[in-house]
Parts: sequence; structure tokens; C-alpha cells
Amino acid sequence: MTDRSLLILPGDGIGPEVMAEVRKVIDWFGTRGITFDVSEDLVGGCAYDAHGTPLTDATMAKAQEVDAVLLGAVGGPKYDKLDFSVKPERGLLRLRKEMDLYANLRPAQCFDALADFSSLKKDVVAGLDIMIIRELTSGVYFGEPRGIIREGNERVGINTQRYTESEIARVARSAFEMARKRNNKVCSMEKANVMESGILWRDVVQEIHDAEYPDVELSHMYADAGAMQLTRWPKQFDVIVTDNLFGDLLSDLAAMLTGSLGMLPSASLGAPMENGRPKALYEPVHGSAPDIAGQGKANPIACILSFAMALRYSFDLGAEAERLEHAVNAVLADGVRTADLMGPEGGTPVSTAAMGDAIVAKL
Amino acid sequence: MTDRSLLILPGDGIGPEVMAEVRKVIDWFGTRGITFDVSEDLVGGCAYDAHGTPLTDATMAKAQEVDAVLLGAVGGPKYDKLDFSVKPERGLLRLRKEMDLYANLRPAQCFDALADFSSLKKDVVAGLDIMIIRELTSGVYFGEPRGIIREGNERVGINTQRYTESEIARVARSAFEMARKRNNKVCSMEKANVMESGILWRDVVQEIHDAEYPDVELSHMYADAGAMQLTRWPKQFDVIVTDNLFGDLLSDLAAMLTGSLGMLPSASLGAPMENGRPKALYEPVHGSAPDIAGQGKANPIACILSFAMALRYSFDLGAEAERLEHAVNAVLADGVRTADLMGPEGGTPVSTAAMGDAIVAKL
Ligand SMILES: CC(C)[C@H](C(=O)O)[C@@H](O)C(=O)O
Ligand SMILES: CC(C)[C@H](C(=O)O)[C@@H](O)C(=O)O
Repeated sequence: MTDRSLLILPGDGIGPEVMAEVRKVIDWFGTRGITFDVSEDLVGGCAYDAHGTPLTDATMAKAQEVDAVLLGAVGGPKYDKLDFSVKPERGLLRLRKEMDLYANLRPAQCFDALADFSSLKKDVVAGLDIMIIRELTSGVYFGEPRGIIREGNERVGINTQRYTESEIARVARSAFEMARKRNNKVCSMEKANVMESGILWRDVVQEIHDAEYPDVELSHMYADAGAMQLTRWPKQFDVIVTDNLFGDLLSDLAAMLTGSLGMLPSASLGAPMENGRPKALYEPVHGSAPDIAGQGKANPIACILSFAMALRYSFDLGAEAERLEHAVNAVLADGVRTADLMGPEGGTPVSTAAMGDAIVAKL
Repeated sequence: MTDRSLLILPGDGIGPEVMAEVRKVIDWFGTRGITFDVSEDLVGGCAYDAHGTPLTDATMAKAQEVDAVLLGAVGGPKYDKLDFSVKPERGLLRLRKEMDLYANLRPAQCFDALADFSSLKKDVVAGLDIMIIRELTSGVYFGEPRGIIREGNERVGINTQRYTESEIARVARSAFEMARKRNNKVCSMEKANVMESGILWRDVVQEIHDAEYPDVELSHMYADAGAMQLTRWPKQFDVIVTDNLFGDLLSDLAAMLTGSLGMLPSASLGAPMENGRPKALYEPVHGSAPDIAGQGKANPIACILSFAMALRYSFDLGAEAERLEHAVNAVLADGVRTADLMGPEGGTPVSTAAMGDAIVAKL
């Protein structure tokens, strides 16, 4: 028996393939006495196909009970025409909202062996290591009123950006705590020059800083300037904290800077549960990549590194997380590459499964 | 006498310096019989200093009457603590809204002589020439309700994203018209997977396309993927059309890709006036750069190229616009550089005034 429970939701597209490799890693840890109670279920398009909804209540309830959810990816062109309310994404958004996973940790790291893959110059991105903390349960993603209404003889599309003081405060704390474990610098991004919700964001982040984290260096930047500065010289940043929508764009931008989209994990954390562990969902940054699904071409590293984040943040197994991260680095240093990591000079890519095997062998 | 009227609003920071160089260009055209009736006024922080408001009603009225407004830049740290309602930015936003300048044209062009300045690899950006059309008078910038309210014992920040069908339709038409003059390709960006206003945006753009511009190639992309693709391989795009807030981030990102922020102009266009000319405001993409203001270091090219856009879009003087653009290119090819364009190999930068003189000399 183990007291570590995991719910695996492989989802759509390449989700099941990359998750199969994570399973190998989990099994390897099991042979070393670090065991997990693993269950598996459906989310996204495959859940819609089976049950007519991208996330059943039963799966939602399970997600609430486990220590950590590990998700592959959701979505695909097959589901593009579905009604908004049952689109694959709604399953993911429901998980985030009902588990109240307010802090989305999106590390953007440039792997030495892969610095050449970036569209940016090598000196701009080599050694890059920033952490974007994106608010994940509020803002325009969930604000009411929302919808498409009729006004006179035309349609009007409406969404509401809404942030409460406490919603801002808690994610600000996550960012300051994170900064203390890193280089002690936080940059908060909003559009306080245009949006009142941005003014409140800036004020609350500053207040939390002054009252609780005066030791951390805090700066503020407009989100458009943030997009520019991330592109110009990303190494100026350590931790960035921003809202749900800006975070969506800026974290994807930061991910692309590294040139290693198939490598980047994420963690979405909520408040501590009774056992002290935070509510948590881990997922790779890449999407479901329907164009290569089922072909054994996908890179499982982002999903495997998401499991490493689970080891660190859910199970307090920092040393084991590092061990796994080192194994990934070692495999890359050996020149093992999936198709997405092939440079113009060519070479023979390995399959998804072979990459997983290589990482387990390094462990 | 001339029938071409211009209102010049130099604004704050480096605004007055760069505008002085535009004046030289205007004077040069005057000697060639292309004359303008020029008036000048205040906007932004300097208007607040003089009148307690970033834009007086009198200036607003003048802006409504002229053929084109030429604006330098607004804002500066001196005004950071001002109340939201009188911040320098409000002057600019009022101009955009009351003149109903719904189509913001933001060309992102990489100048051959400057391709090395980009943080991106040269092959990724050399020859880049895309046009972002940003909706400029609606969306979360202007939607109601907005503000900071009190709810129980905490503050709540609220903004509203709101788009009507006709607001989307008219900017979509601007994008399709633009594409027809370029490479006939439009990519529309939103977050239709998360926001209902994005669904309406996507639907209306598609409808206008199918009914009026079936000859133009249209694609849709989520804005986060758009940020990624702009970073990965920007040359895949021709015209991008997007909303006010996404456009703010994406156009700044695109500007930074080129490495030539001091070079990029913009045009904001509204409906045709009685004389057939569109309501129009032209401004450089760079901001007020308070850190270098008053030192003769600013690059006047973005502002001069904004005047070139005025020649083209307000006065139907396309040949003259090209002549001016060629003069700028020729000066750059000669190696004349302001401080912002100095590479690591060094050299002696010229002043703002010397750059303006060099361009006039080339004319
Ligand atoms: C799939 C989609 C709903 C999601 C989002 O917009 O949050 C994705 O882009 C992400 O960043 O996780
Ligand atoms: C100055 C500011 C209000 C403005 C905006 O957000 O629109 C600026 O960033 C721009 O893009 O013109």
C-alpha cells in the first residue's frame, strides 16, 4: 500500500502516447519502493465520445480525491464544431476551476543541448531559466456575465474580466514564495494603464510585497512591454506573475523562446488538502498535436518532466525529481532525439517509446 | 492655400524631439508644392500640466476637423501617480475613441540594414514584412461595466470585453482590403476556445470573408498559438487581424521581432469624412522614452515613417510616401545610425537632428 495517489488523464491526440512513457517512469520508481496508487480516466474529446461530456462528474470527483492529477492533452479538429459547452477544453477548465488550482507554474527553461532550436539567437536564450506564475481560476476565463447576446439586429459577444483582492493576493504569494527559492525577483505584468482590474492587480501585488515579502525584489511592467522584453532579453526575468489571459499568451511566448516546446512541463496548484499536499494537476505545455498522433513521433519529455514536478510539489520528493530531470538531460546529452528535436543537419529520430526507454535506462 | 490639414501633437518625452524632425520633412515637401496647413497642440502629460487634463475639449474638436493627426508619444514616470481618469494615456484613448479610429495598422518590417539588431536569428526575420490590423475602439479597453468596486470586505477589479458584430465586421473588412493589396492572406486571432466574444469574432470574420472576400485566404488561430507562431516563424503571416487587447500585445511582440522599434510607424484609421479622407491618427510605435528625452538621442525614423503613412493613407500621395521611405532606407544603407541602432561593434551615433537632416538631404 502507498499513500500517494495519482489520477492519470491521458486525453486526446498524443496524450495517450506520451503518458505511456510516464507510466514506465512511475513503474521504475515503484521498483525502488516509491510507489503510487494510479488510476486512469477520460478527459476531453475522448470523454465526450464515450459520455457526451468532456469530463464526467465521476471523474471530477476522483480528481478531487487524489493527491495529483496528471493530464496529457485535450482537443483536436474532430471536436472543433462541438458546442462551446462540451468542447474538450471545457473538461480541462472545469478541473482547474473546481479544484481551485489558482497558481499555474510554467517554467521556461532552455536546455543546453537544444539552444540551437530556438528561433532566437543562442546568446539570448542559452541558460534561460524563468518561471511564469499564471493565475488560473479567475479573470476573463470565468468571469460573468459572458455569452453572445442579441442587441437590436446584431449579436454582441461579452466576457468579463474580474479579479478579487484575495484572488490576486494568493497568487502573488505563490510568486513571492517561488522567488525566494530562486533569484528573489518578481515582475508582475498587467495593463494598469488601461484596465482597472490591472490597477487593482498592481496595487494588491505591491501591498502583499510590502507587508509580507519586502525582501523580494518586485517590479511592475505593462503586459505589452512584457511581451517585448521577453522577446528582447528574457534573461532579465526570474519569476513573472500575471493574470489568466495575459499568462496564457506570455507563458506560451516564453515557452517558444526556449525552442523546446516538447520539453516543457507545467504544474497547477491549489490550496493544501487535509494531508498537507496541495491540490494539483500536472500537464505538458504542448497540446494534443493531432497531426502526429498515433505515429510514435511525439516527444514524451514534457509529460515526463511534468511528473517530475509532481514528485517535487505534491510528494515532497525533490531529490527524486532532480534524479529524473538529470536522466532527461543525460539522454539529451547523448544525442537521443525525437523527431521534433531534429536539427537541419538531420540524423535518425527515435520513437516516443524509445525516448521513454532511454530515460528509464538512465535512471 | 492648401486643402491638406495636419494637427501635430508632439506629446511627452522624446515626442517633441522626433516631431521636430518630421517638421523638416513637411517643410521639404512644402518647397516642392506639397503643402500642409499645420497646427500644433498638447496631449498627454504636458496637456495635464498646462490644463489639468490630458486632452482638452478644444484639442479634441480640432482633431475631429483636420485631415490627419500626427502624435509623438505620451506618458512618463512623472505622471505615474495621477488618477486613472487624467493619466496621459487617457488623452490618446479619447482621441482613438471619439475619432472612432477602429483600424490600427501596425506594419512589422525588418529593415535589411538592421536585421542583426533582432534578438531573433537573422534568417527568421530578414525580409519580414507583416501587417497587424488591431481593432482600436472597442473590446476591454472601452467596455462597460468597469472599475474597482467593493464586495463584502474586499475590492474587486472589473473590466468588460465587449464586441458587436458590426465592430468586428468593419475591422475585418479593413484587414481583407489590406490583404488584397499585399499577399492576399489574413490570419485572425482570438481565444474562441475560452471566450464567447472570441467565438463571435471568429464567426463574423468568417462570414465577411465568405460573403465579400472569398478570394482572400483566411485562417484562424488562438492568440496564444499566435504569440508562439509569431516567435517561431513570423514570415508565415501576411495580414493579422485581432482585437484591441490581443492586438496590443501581439503588435508589440511583432515590432520587437524586427529589432527596430525606433523604426516602426503606425496608422489608426476610421470612417471616411465628407472630403473622402478617413479620420486618421499617425504615431510611432515606440513610447515616450523618458530616460533619453531631451538628449538628442532619440531616433526620429518611426515618427517620420508615420508621416509617410499619412501621405499614403490620408492624402493619397503613395509615390511621395515611397520617396520618403526610400530616403530613410538610403540613409540607413549609408550607415547613418542613431544611438538605438548602434551594434556591439560600436561607431559614432548621430543625433536626432542629424538623422532628420540626413533624411531630408536624401530627399
Ligand atoms: C486549452 C486551453 C483552454 C488552455 C488555455 O487557454 O488556458 C491552453 O491554452 C493552456 O494554456 O493551458
Ligand atoms: C499607451 C497605451 C494606452 C497604448 C495601448 O495600450 O493601446 C499603447 O500600448 C499602444 O499600443 O498604443
